[in-house]
Amino acid sequence: MELWFTEKQTEHFGITARIIRTLHTEQTPFQKLDMVETAEFGNMLILDGMVMTTQKDEFVYHEMVAHVPLFTHPHPENVLVVGGGDGGVIREVLKHPSVKKATLVEIDGKVIECSKKYLPEIAGQLDDPRVEVKVDDGFMHIAKSENEYDVIMVDSTEPVGPAVNLFTKGFYAGIAKALKEDGIFVAQTDNPWFKADLIRTVYRDVKEIFPVTRLYTANIPTYPSGLWTFTLGSKKYDPLAVSDDRFHDIETNYYTKELHKACFVLPKFVADLTK
Amino acid sequence: MELWFTEKQTEHFGITARIIRTLHTEQTPFQKLDMVETAEFGNMLILDGMVMTTQKDEFVYHEMVAHVPLFTHPHPENVLVVGGGDGGVIREVLKHPSVKKATLVEIDGKVIECSKKYLPEIAGQLDDPRVEVKVDDGFMHIAKSENEYDVIMVDSTEPVGPAVNLFTKGFYAGIAKALKEDGIFVAQTDNPWFKADLIRTVYRDVKEIFPVTRLYTANIPTYPSGLWTFTLGSKKYDPLAVSDDRFHDIETNYYTKELHKACFVLPKFVADLTK
Repeated sequence: MELWFTEKQTEHFGITARIIRTLHTEQTPFQKLDMVETAEFGNMLILDGMVMTTQKDEFVYHEMVAHVPLFTHPHPENVLVVGGGDGGVIREVLKHPSVKKATLVEIDGKVIECSKKYLPEIAGQLDDPRVEVKVDDGFMHIAKSENEYDVIMVDSTEPVGPAVNLFTKGFYAGIAKALKEDGIFVAQTDNPWFKADLIRTVYRDVKEIFPVTRLYTANIPTYPSGLWTFTLGSKKYDPLAVSDDRFHDIETNYYTKELHKACFVLPKFVADLTK
Repeated sequence: MELWFTEKQTEHFGITARIIRTLHTEQTPFQKLDMVETAEFGNMLILDGMVMTTQKDEFVYHEMVAHVPLFTHPHPENVLVVGGGDGGVIREVLKHPSVKKATLVEIDGKVIECSKKYLPEIAGQLDDPRVEVKVDDGFMHIAKSENEYDVIMVDSTEPVGPAVNLFTKGFYAGIAKALKEDGIFVAQTDNPWFKADLIRTVYRDVKEIFPVTRLYTANIPTYPSGLWTFTLGSKKYDPLAVSDDRFHDIETNYYTKELHKACFVLPKFVADLTK
């Protein structure tokens, strides 16, 4: 018998992956959590039926969330990751020697626990002494923070279930308040093929709050359409104005200093969402 | 009853699309041809079980095959498309006013016939007076041509079935002979996630024949991994050296003059395939 997991990424379209075994399955207080071993992408974390990350392609998302803002900020010391319980963004953040503290605020402790067990290459850095892990509501954490962070990354699930508040204008205003006066934030903002309206709305909301607002993309094969967007809001620094001497060597498999700027050059139908 | 078409893009991974109806199905002398109406992507052409094009996302592939070489060549007049029986590349070629003649050599006349009937927005330009359609073997056509074309585009299926010859070094040598002394060619060369070896081999082969060899990418949601590569070989002109005044306005939905250069900036693991 062959087992296949199918994610309906839209009502009428999806991906399907052969499953070798189910490693863990549970209903947490926040969502359905499944960890499966796939034949093509290695271990795969699934929340509410949606692929969150896989061992084979996780590097794309985690590198692109972390390094674009961190190489834009001249000296990031205090970094916050909202969501991101698998630990992948934290792993990339710690590659920047200027970072003194990285805080992870994940609402669902079970995601952290399960990632440590089944995705150790991704979650392994969560025990680093520079990292503080808080199992807490990211929206509330942001609401309580003021003038505190150099860079904030919002590594959320889709805007259904526990992450719905993380796509509101009130949340972006809270992020602006939580950032220092030259702070930067980035949020994953889904794909332009099936969620064009979401990207348009978030971009418009962020632009009303942040002087520098930019959209960039990366290719993630297990995410809907394979083309993922990230919306960056910055109080001062422009990612397109970073000088070449800012980049220092870090080990990556997707991000490069050339891609740091090229990833902002959008296909026309995507660029149109920002107009 | 719901009908879903599933393409196994690898042995262990695939996409699945809900089908409203089957419009046409036949075994041609060369391949299995299916035309279906999907709920998500409109009409979809499938050859030997693999998605070739869909009404919703076809513009990406066709624009990126055509405009990158055509805006690199300063005055393309005589253009050849090998394969491409759906007519989409021809449609884009005809947007360039310098083009006097565009020849389509498609081995399977049934693909042309079926595309004209069910994909009229894609195939509609095949009756343009500048276009000559030949139902013939592209490999043989290339072998018989000498010093004839300014630009050649290889719009083939995967390297199985009728297209297997179109991924050989002998074919690229034939293309070099068929091109004029400043000619350019481009071929679709699959995706870097599941077909890294193919890309590496083609790039190496083309590089041994053409002084300028470049790899570029585009996002195509219905193709494996969503990230597609194109290998460009040029006898003289470098796509990265095109001056800004070369670009003239054409209507596109993906290609832009900024993307003309940015599409060559590769993710690190893809760039590594060219080393």
